[in-house]
Order: sequence, then structure tokens, then C-alpha cells
Amino acid sequence: MQRTIFEPEHEQFRDSVRKFMQTEVGPNADRWREAGIVDREVYLKAGEQGLLCVFADEKYGGAGIEDLRFDQIIIEENMRYGDIGFYINLHNDLVAPYIHKLCNDEQRDRFMPGIVSGETILAVAMTEPSTGSDLAGMKTRAVESGDHWVLNGAKTYISNGILGDLIVVAARTDPDKPHGISLFLVERGMEGFERGRKLDKMGLKSQDTAELFFNDVKVPKANLIGEAGQGFKYLARMLAQERLIAAIGFMATAQTAFDLTLEYVKERRAFGKPIGAFQNTRFKMAQMRAELDMAQTYVDQCVMLLNDKKLTAEDASAAKLLTSELEGRVMDSCLQLHGGAGYMEEYRISRMYTDARISRIFAGTSEIMLEIIGRGIGLDERKMN
Amino acid sequence: MQRTIFEPEHEQFRDSVRKFMQTEVGPNADRWREAGIVDREVYLKAGEQGLLCVFADEKYGGAGIEDLRFDQIIIEENMRYGDIGFYINLHNDLVAPYIHKLCNDEQRDRFMPGIVSGETILAVAMTEPSTGSDLAGMKTRAVESGDHWVLNGAKTYISNGILGDLIVVAARTDPDKPHGISLFLVERGMEGFERGRKLDKMGLKSQDTAELFFNDVKVPKANLIGEAGQGFKYLARMLAQERLIAAIGFMATAQTAFDLTLEYVKERRAFGKPIGAFQNTRFKMAQMRAELDMAQTYVDQCVMLLNDKKLTAEDASAAKLLTSELEGRVMDSCLQLHGGAGYMEEYRISRMYTDARISRIFAGTSEIMLEIIGRGIGLDERKMN
Amino acid sequence: MQRTIFEPEHEQFRDSVRKFMQTEVGPNADRWREAGIVDREVYLKAGEQGLLCVFADEKYGGAGIEDLRFDQIIIEENMRYGDIGFYINLHNDLVAPYIHKLCNDEQRDRFMPGIVSGETILAVAMTEPSTGSDLAGMKTRAVESGDHWVLNGAKTYISNGILGDLIVVAARTDPDKPHGISLFLVERGMEGFERGRKLDKMGLKSQDTAELFFNDVKVPKANLIGEAGQGFKYLARMLAQERLIAAIGFMATAQTAFDLTLEYVKERRAFGKPIGAFQNTRFKMAQMRAELDMAQTYVDQCVMLLNDKKLTAEDASAAKLLTSELEGRVMDSCLQLHGGAGYMEEYRISRMYTDARISRIFAGTSEIMLEIIGRGIGLDERKMN
Amino acid sequence: MQRTIFEPEHEQFRDSVRKFMQTEVGPNADRWREAGIVDREVYLKAGEQGLLCVFADEKYGGAGIEDLRFDQIIIEENMRYGDIGFYINLHNDLVAPYIHKLCNDEQRDRFMPGIVSGETILAVAMTEPSTGSDLAGMKTRAVESGDHWVLNGAKTYISNGILGDLIVVAARTDPDKPHGISLFLVERGMEGFERGRKLDKMGLKSQDTAELFFNDVKVPKANLIGEAGQGFKYLARMLAQERLIAAIGFMATAQTAFDLTLEYVKERRAFGKPIGAFQNTRFKMAQMRAELDMAQTYVDQCVMLLNDKKLTAEDASAAKLLTSELEGRVMDSCLQLHGGAGYMEEYRISRMYTDARISRIFAGTSEIMLEIIGRGIGLDERKMN
Repeated sequence: MQRTIFEPEHEQFRDSVRKFMQTEVGPNADRWREAGIVDREVYLKAGEQGLLCVFADEKYGGAGIEDLRFDQIIIEENMRYGDIGFYINLHNDLVAPYIHKLCNDEQRDRFMPGIVSGETILAVAMTEPSTGSDLAGMKTRAVESGDHWVLNGAKTYISNGILGDLIVVAARTDPDKPHGISLFLVERGMEGFERGRKLDKMGLKSQDTAELFFNDVKVPKANLIGEAGQGFKYLARMLAQERLIAAIGFMATAQTAFDLTLEYVKERRAFGKPIGAFQNTRFKMAQMRAELDMAQTYVDQCVMLLNDKKLTAEDASAAKLLTSELEGRVMDSCLQLHGGAGYMEEYRISRMYTDARISRIFAGTSEIMLEIIGRGIGLDERKMN
Repeated sequence: MQRTIFEPEHEQFRDSVRKFMQTEVGPNADRWREAGIVDREVYLKAGEQGLLCVFADEKYGGAGIEDLRFDQIIIEENMRYGDIGFYINLHNDLVAPYIHKLCNDEQRDRFMPGIVSGETILAVAMTEPSTGSDLAGMKTRAVESGDHWVLNGAKTYISNGILGDLIVVAARTDPDKPHGISLFLVERGMEGFERGRKLDKMGLKSQDTAELFFNDVKVPKANLIGEAGQGFKYLARMLAQERLIAAIGFMATAQTAFDLTLEYVKERRAFGKPIGAFQNTRFKMAQMRAELDMAQTYVDQCVMLLNDKKLTAEDASAAKLLTSELEGRVMDSCLQLHGGAGYMEEYRISRMYTDARISRIFAGTSEIMLEIIGRGIGLDERKMN
Repeated sequence: MQRTIFEPEHEQFRDSVRKFMQTEVGPNADRWREAGIVDREVYLKAGEQGLLCVFADEKYGGAGIEDLRFDQIIIEENMRYGDIGFYINLHNDLVAPYIHKLCNDEQRDRFMPGIVSGETILAVAMTEPSTGSDLAGMKTRAVESGDHWVLNGAKTYISNGILGDLIVVAARTDPDKPHGISLFLVERGMEGFERGRKLDKMGLKSQDTAELFFNDVKVPKANLIGEAGQGFKYLARMLAQERLIAAIGFMATAQTAFDLTLEYVKERRAFGKPIGAFQNTRFKMAQMRAELDMAQTYVDQCVMLLNDKKLTAEDASAAKLLTSELEGRVMDSCLQLHGGAGYMEEYRISRMYTDARISRIFAGTSEIMLEIIGRGIGLDERKMN
Repeated sequence: MQRTIFEPEHEQFRDSVRKFMQTEVGPNADRWREAGIVDREVYLKAGEQGLLCVFADEKYGGAGIEDLRFDQIIIEENMRYGDIGFYINLHNDLVAPYIHKLCNDEQRDRFMPGIVSGETILAVAMTEPSTGSDLAGMKTRAVESGDHWVLNGAKTYISNGILGDLIVVAARTDPDKPHGISLFLVERGMEGFERGRKLDKMGLKSQDTAELFFNDVKVPKANLIGEAGQGFKYLARMLAQERLIAAIGFMATAQTAFDLTLEYVKERRAFGKPIGAFQNTRFKMAQMRAELDMAQTYVDQCVMLLNDKKLTAEDASAAKLLTSELEGRVMDSCLQLHGGAGYMEEYRISRMYTDARISRIFAGTSEIMLEIIGRGIGLDERKMN
């Protein structure tokens, strides 16, 4: 189905992004996967190309355009022609807004230029070894002490955990309130801030996911984001965008897997004809084509709603839930249509399959999405009896 | 998710349609179901209210507005507050266009006024006892003879089969070509045109589905639609709209079932709390809410594309396929959440469940939709080897 | 897959049951469906034929054989060649055991002869208008008064509600304990015992499901089953058999639907070949064939375990859960393969489809089954924190 | 559900196998996975322990017992406590029978002792780069020449491709017949027989899957299995056992994943309680428990039928199809219940998930299984028109 949300300026932007991904990212993917981490330089190159924080004020090097379609295009082209391990949307859409939207002028002036140029790579640290989506269980703590906060604790499953130069860290500052959390900007090199091992994941092999440790890290008060104790509210405010960004990515990988499988089933032959000629193959592909079109229309609509500041938490959760489920089904069917080849790492579908298994888990599991959507229709366990 | 395609004029129209359905249609539904047929008068009343063929030229009594959103609203309100057996969209959207778009001026002038006023109720007769979607097997034949055609054959599963005054009948006119089909306007009272028994269906109890028989029916040449032998092309031209209209209806019934079930699970208690408080219920409802939002967004988008004459056969097929599947899942889950009550005819969900089972079959089965979508992506069995 | 649990004596028995169903039951099915109830006489005939309570002592007219395979055969043949509305397994397997196993000699001597001959038709009344599976909410009460109990309350969804001569009624006798329930034998004609309207159900049209009312019914103390206050325990003791019996029936209807659909797809042609030649049809049928074989093997194994008194509540719940789900999928797929015909009541698959929708609800919904199985693996919400 | 097919002698055998797996296999799994191959020595140890070819004649070192339950026990214990990369069932059940059942005495005497002792590790080479299940497309050829055959071609996806000392190789010997295939015993060290690279697979990391090349390999006539041109028949004869063996393994891994997840959800807490206390978790686990029980019963029944030589190709295909689908669903659900941990390689479920993705593909894809089952019920595309 033809997409209806893009204007000529977006298409032009897409062309240039595509070229960047095809020349600067895609060709490195195998090497990065082997290394378990992408080159720092790709962020600098992306910065030069104007792909980091399009929304940022011009004085920081951005374009000053608040239009998520540009971010969407970057993600779509990176997923198709670049490398999923180059987690540019983490930098652009999931972390930079904490600084650009929640920080004061001093902080913005201090950090945004490096963020937009790619010198400062971003990460965010919320999850802890013993807690997943349940922030009430957060154990990392920060205690006020003079002109700084003393930070102690550990975080895990942190994307850009090795590359990250500036980390938004959530820590409990009010031990008595379950949601008494604040957000801090922890910088590379701060004493007591250490990175653990790079975690071995099923997929996303070129993405550096790591543990982070904070042992009496002195974080200057000037590195507190917004007000103390408001962290939970700030996190919540970012969630709709975070989930939509995730959904955009899932659609892009699913569409890519579909396309390469379509090509495969047209060429690969068995029992005297292309396997794409078998009714089972045709029906599976057609079902995917239809579901992808429907889901893409929904995601595109969500992007427009977010641009209009009308996207609700429930809409974004629905987008994240349904696209991650669809991505999972698509990867599974596409791999199956590849037969034995689909199980070999040299075939891209094999890697896309393992990459995609995290989608139903990270950024809020499917189960958390269902809780949120349920509450939106008045089915809130805590209020029903 | 909020819907974005409607303007204030549509909302106003919806209000008046809703009132009509609530007063003139809904209250009759039980009686009609008992009778197995709706009152003819409801068509006249709908005509008076301006609900028949909004698109028709003003000289015929229509509003002359080509905007499927008005048709969509009529269907949505009928499904929710009226009665699915009042098959107003068959009249408006599936048959009237044959006359309004394909007929010549003389024919239009002759038939459209009655169609718009509700005096002339419409039907279309394609399916035959031994053929479903496979038109190549059509056995009804028409042979030229002087100033008329002599029509012989039988049709089945004809909606409005008893009420219908003017029937668009497909018949083979060229025995040598598999697609050598023409369309005729057969009128009530023509000699040799007889109606068979009303068929007993699993659901849709107030809809008069019947067999039709044609024994040497003399159809005047003036009742041929367009050109002889072009019927297949004409049918094909209507298919995208037909399937989208079907999808609009499926969404309306599914949304209605969801809403009444949501109310039910909030009130009905078991094991000390509302059944809506159980996680299983909440997750089921949330999953449906998300899928309904996504599908509705797609259907709405299809309506706008059709308005712009950009809706493809594949898009419409995808809409029909996915919404009928979703409707089926929603009916099944909603019924299950009703427990034993869901199996009792006095509960609306029970009737909606059986009504909905035809959706994956009529207007092209799900399997036919998959064939069409598959061909659209180059997987056409006939051309691959 | 060949079944392995039957001996020659079972096969011989099956032959005679089949003949009975083909001559005395099947030919009446249409008439009974029209009437909404089966003839009382069929119970007498079944009694004569030795099909009622094979397990009953010889002195009562039974064969004195405790082997559920005979009951299984009766159900299988009734489902295939008889009529699902002839609820012989309710009589034989779900109610008679209350009398035969839990009653004292006096009661057994009084009631069993009529039960075995078919003069006394059985029913059981547990469900109430405001409670489903949650027995703790039961409102029907019985209060001791001299040599009888005074029974007050209402029951609903009672199978054999009109035909039933002897009803096992559950009533609360200890208002202070949630499970303080006793079982009574209520006889046709007792003063204050009235039957409400026959309920209109989606399917099972020949089965008389009704409401029952008890207004100051004086039930003699001699009609109490077992000990007062032990009803909950007695009900629980029957559950494994009740659920396995249900599963046996689901398999029989699903197998029958499969067989008639297999015949249909071999004969019905479309697009130039039998629809059974299409890969989609072949794969759907093959998947069903495989799943039916697997499920039948499990059910047969459960029958043998029950015979050995080794069948657990969890095993029986799993059988009920999985076979009802499979039956639902099979009915849906088989109907779809019939195309439009599948929606017409004259085709058996249409009626089997609506009949089967109750399977996932009655005798404990699928959700209740999951709770039970969950507890069996240590996941009991009430004990985890 | 308790399993019913094992006798005390099997339980005793299971104990000893378990100890072997726990001491000689499991502790090496991490190292082997790192190395991409298991130690040759483990075959020797298994041979000493009597775990290689229990069915083999005593003169070869076997126990001479034809009872697949022993093989089943070895597989189950290896999957749970050993390592899936130690492909003992390939050796025992998929290749050794070619020698033990199809070879002549001379060949048996020559090869069986080493096979039973573990000195000779087995493999089988059928699949070729351009063909999957479609043997008619096989390109490897053998041409008679004096007292030997000259073998040319390439094979891929060969398990034990590096370790294998004796390879059963299928090659075309009659170029004119699509099924004109013969089976040869190719020995390590034969001139012109070379191994390609070890293939990088998504999972099964400790299993050495490789390509094999045959360049003018002179295979002595004494190394032909059975008669020339009968290879297709021989392969077909092994298929039922091959598929049942696969199914046994799938059940063992699925059961293991279920058990470790059950433990996990009882311990892991979120939102104030064990995640196993949430209804969604309980229902998911209960559904799996039920499905696993049903499938295990079917597989066990198939084992008994195979022992009685009554297992049909369709039964075995159904077992392979349904257990691989179930394994896939179980792995997916179990991983999801682990949350982010499930994506980390250090958690066993992560590795089991990728290991299991091959199950629906190898030993005949699910689609091939459906074709076979379909033919068994008379739905054979080639014979319908």
C-alpha cells in the first residue's frame, strides 16, 4: 500500500540517508558484528551528514525541525541498508530528548553540541539486575552531599554501554517513595563509574550491551536533570515516543525481511518450480504483505499524531505491541521459507531472526503493553474490586 | 485511537443516521429476525431520510456527493444501532453503482429515482449452486432473440433475494469464452423469474437470502448493462469498493461486540471481583483494543484512498481479509468472556457470533483474497514455472 | 493413526451401538431439532438395548462392567450417527454415578432400575443465574425441617431440564461455609419444583436446556445424597470423569466433521479441480488429521488411566481444554472449506459449528481448566506471594 | 501426566544414562560450544558405557535388543543433562541402521564393531547445495568403473561433517530415472573426499555441520549398500524412524525448557510477587504443560508402534510436525517469560531457543510433513484432477 505521510522534502532526505547507510554503515556491518561493537567514527560521520538530532536547535548544529518523520526515515534506512547495531535512534530519539527537552539552558549548551556532532555518544541506564519494568524495585541510590550527589548501584542490559560517553542514569533519591527517582547525567571518566563486561546476546551482535557499575560516583548537582524526585514523571513522558520509535524500527526490519524473502522464493526452485509458486508460499507471503501494510499505516498515523502531540500512551503501546508481534511472525515465516539456508548465519534472515527476538521484550515487554492498554479502557486491576 | 478522517459535516450526518437507526431500525430487529426478513418500508423510510445513495445525482433525489465516508457512517450506525439484516449497503454500495456508473442515461432515468426513494430494492445475482468465486464455471446463460435476451439458469445465496425488485444478474452470453459474461437488469414480475425458498442460514436471520430461478425469462435489450460480453470487467471494477464496504461493516460489528463485552466484564463478577479484573480478561480485551485500532486506521485510510480513486484491488483485498479475520477472533473472544450467557440467543454476542461467520466467506473467501494479494506481489501461479 | 485400546468385545459392542444410533436416533434428529427436545422414548429404547449405565449392577439391569471404553463407544457412535441432543452421556456418565456410587443401598434400589431402563431420565442442577463455575456464590439453600429439607432457589442452563425426572440439585446447607453444600435428589412432581422456559441456544437445538425453580420444595431426608455438607467434595470427585467424558465427545464430533469435510473437498470442484487438490486445502486437512490423531491418542490414554483409577484432575482438565480447543479449530476450518455452503443450516457442518461453540465453556471453561492445571504445577495464585 | 510405556529395566537404564550425561557430557558443553565441535572421545566413552547401538548384535558389542525405548531414553537424557551437539542419535538411530539392517554380513562385520565401540563415528550425506527435500534434483553422481564406483559431487548441511569417519552418501547412479539413486559407504581418508568449512549456524553451536566434496572418489564396490538403484527405497524405509527420533528429541528439549522456566517463574519476582503468580504466566505455563503431556503421550505411543513395526509414515510425520511446532511455541513462550534474561546467551533458554529453530526444517520441513500426511488421506495433488 502506498504510504501517504511523506512530502517531497522527506523523500529527498530519504535518498541522502540511504546513500549514507549504503556507504558508511552497511559495508561495516560484518566487521562490527565480529567486533561486537560499532566504530565510534560512524557517529561523527552521521553528525557531519546532519543525521543526529534533526530536531535540535540550529545553534547546536541541528536543523531545528520537530518532525518525527525525519527520525523515522533515518531508522528505516538504517534497518534496511545500514546496521541494526548502529543504534542511532537510541542516541537521537531515546536519550537526546532528555537533554534537549528536560535540561536547563546551561546543561543544553554544555552537552548538545557534542551530541549533535557525534562526539558525545548517548546511553540511558534504567534496568537493574533484579528488576525489569518494575521501577519500584530500583536499588541504585543517589544521596545529596554538598554540591554533588553520591551515586551507588548497578545497571544492566545497557545499550551503547561501552560506547556511551554521557549516560542518563535513574537512581532512587527518596528511599521512602516507590517512585522517588531522579535522573542524572553521568559522564565518561567520572571516578567510580565502571563498565562491566559486554553481554553475550542471542542477536544484535554488533550492539555493545553492557553492565554499568557506580561506586560512590560523585555526580555534580549541575548534572541533575530537571528536579530531584521527578524522574519517574520524566521517564513516563518519554515513553510514548520511545515505543513509537521502537515500532518504527520493527516495521522496517519486518519489511526488509519480507522483501528479501520475496526475492528468495521467486528464485529458489524445488520440485520443478520456484517455491514462490506453491500455494502455501503464496498465501504466507500474501498474509504478511497484508499485515505489514496494515501495521505500517497504523505506525505512520501514530507518527503524525505524535507530531501533533496527540499520540496517547495507549496508542504507542498498541503500536509497540502489535508491530513487535508482527515482526516476530514475519521473521519466523520468512526464515521457514528459506529452509535450511535460513538457519545459516551467512543468510541475513538468520541474523534478522535472532535480532528480532528482543523486540517483544525490550522497551516494555508485550505483557507490560497489554497492562497499559488495559488500563486505558478502564481495566485496571488496582482499581477494580 | 481517535479517528482522523471525519469532518464536522460527517459527525453531524452520523448523529442523524444514529437517530434513524435507533428509532426506525433497531426496535424492529427482533421482529424481523423472527420473520426472517425486514419490512420493505424501512427502505422507504431510509429513502425519505436521505440515506439511500447519497452519491446519486440530485435529479434522482440523491445528494450528489461522492464521498464514501457517508456510506461508511451509514454502515457503522446500522451495525451498531440498527440491524445487520437491513442490508442497506448492498443496496447503496454494492448494486446501485452498477446502475449509476455503468448504465446509460435512459436506464439511469428509469431506475435511479425508485432506487433513491427506496421503492426499488436492489440485489445482485452472481453465485450459482455449483460455483463459488469461480466465475468461469457460470452456467446461467442468455441468448439473443430479437429485441430481448432469453435468460435461463439458477442463482443461489442471493441477499435481498425475496425483497429485491431489481436484480443485477450475471449470465454467460458467449459460451466459448470463460469470461464471456454480461450483466442484466431483471425486474420483479418478469415472466419466468421465480424465487426459491428462503435459505436457512446459521446467522443473519433477518436477512432474506434465497435462490432465484430464471426459466426463459425475456429480458429486454434495454435492460442490458453496458456492453454485452463485458460483464466480467464490470464486476472486477466494482470489487475494490465491494470489499472495502464489507471491511467497513466487519469493523463496525467487531467494535460493537468489543464495547458490549467491555461493559459486561466490568459488571459481571466471579470469584469475588469483576471478571474484567482478571489478568487474562484484561489482556484479551487489551489485545483486541489494539488490533481494532490498528485495523480501523487501515480501513479509514482505504476509504480516503478510494475517495481519491487510488485504492488498489490488493489494498481492498487486504482490508477484507484482515478485518474479517479480526472480526472472527473478536467475536470468539467476546463470546468466551460472556461464559454460558454467550451461548444464549438472548445475548446479542451470541447472534453477532453467528452473523460474523459468513464474513470470511462472502464477497470472496479469505483464500481468494490471499490469491489476489499474492498476485499483486508477483506470486501468480499461472505465470511461474 | 490406529487406535490401540479396544479389544474385540469393544468392537462388537460398537457395531451394535452404531446400528442403534443409525436406526433409532439419527433418523429423528431433524424432527427433534425442530421440536427443541428429543423423544422420551429414545431413553427407553436405549435402555432395552443395554446402553444405559453399562456399569450398573446386574440386579439393576446393568452389565456390571466398570470400563469407560463402553461409555466412550456409546458417545462416539451417538455423535457420529445419532444426535448430540440425545444427551445419553449426561444420563450415563455425569449423573447416574452420583446415585450409583454415592447413594446408600435404599436409594440405589429405589432409583437405579428406572435409570437403567430409561424410565427415569436424569439431570444435574448446579449453575445459577448469577454464578458460573464459582460455587462459593451459590444461593440455592436447603434448610432442615423435621423429616425433610426445604429447598429454595433457582438454577439455569440445566441440560435435560424439561425431560429430567430425577435431578441432582446442589444447595447450600451451611450458610457460613463457602463450600457448605449438599446434594439432593429432586423428583419430578415434587410440590414447588417448577421448570422455566426452554432456553434458546446458539446450537444444540434438540437439547432441552432450561431454568429450574425451587419454591419451598420439601425434599425428604431420604433424598439427601451421602452426608450433608459434603456436596462440594462429591462434586469434585466426579469432575475428572465429567471432563474426560466431555473430551470424548469433542473428539467424536471433530473426527466426524473432519471425515465429512474430507469427502466434501474430494468432490467439490473449483477452478478446474477438486478443492482438495489445492495445497492450502491439503495442508489444512493434514494439519487437522495430525492434531486429531495426537489428541485421540491422549484421550484414549486418559480412558485407560481412568479405568485404572489413575487419572488425575489435571490430566482430565488438560484433555477437556485441548480437545475443546481442537474441536473449535476443526469446526472453523471445516466450515471454511465448505465455502458458502458451510453457512447454510442444511449442511451438517453448519450445525456442528454452532453445537461446538459451547465446548470451551461448559463443564468448566477453558480458563478454569488452565487454573486447575496451573495449580497442579505449583502455580496457585492463592499460595504465592 | 505419568508416562506408561517404561518398565523397571528402562528406568534402571535411564539412571545410568543420566549419570553418564551428567558426568561425561554436560560438563563439556560450554567448551564444545566454544570449539564448535564435540570431542571424539565422548563417542568412545559412550561406547564403553554401552550407549552406542543397543540394538546391535552381541557379537558386535551391542545388547541385541530391538526396543526403541532405550534409544529414546538416551536422547531424553542427553537433551536434558548432556549436550544437543553430541549427536548420539544421528550415530545410533539415523545412520547405524543403514549398516546394521541393509548391509551384507561382510560389511556389517567390517564396520559394526567400530560403530558400537565409538571408534567409527557416523554421518549421512543427502542434502545438496541446490536441493532440499527434493531428491529428484540430486546432482552427486557415481559411475561404475571396474571394481569401484567413481563418485563426484558436493553435499551440504552434513551433521558430524567433520567428526564423521564413515559417511552414508547418496548419489545418482541412473541418470535417466529421477529416483535412480544408490547409497555408498565413504570412509575417512578416501582420496578425493574432502571436507569443506564448518558452517556457522544460528544455534547448535557445538555440532559440526559441514560441506563435503567428492572429487573422483573411488569407492570400492564392496562399499555399496544393498543393491544399486535402490537407494531411494532404502532412504524411504528409514524415514519413519528418523522422524520419530527427531520428535523424541524435540519433546525432550521442550520438556527441559518448560521445567527450567517453571523454576524461574517461581523464583523471579516483579511487582511484589513471583512472576509465576500472575494469571498470564500461570495460563501460559498451564497451556504448555497440557500440550506437552498430550504430545508426549503421542510420541510414546509411536515408539511402541515402531517397536511393533506398525508405525506408518504418516504417524511419524505427524509426530515430527506437531512436536517441532510445539517445541517452537514452548521455546518462544519460555524465553518471553524470562524477560531480558532470555535474550542473554548465559541463560540456557536463549541457546535452546536458537537450537530449536532448526527443528521445523531439518529431517523434512513442516511443509513436507503436511504433504505426506495429506497423501495419506487421499489428498495427493499428483493424482487429483
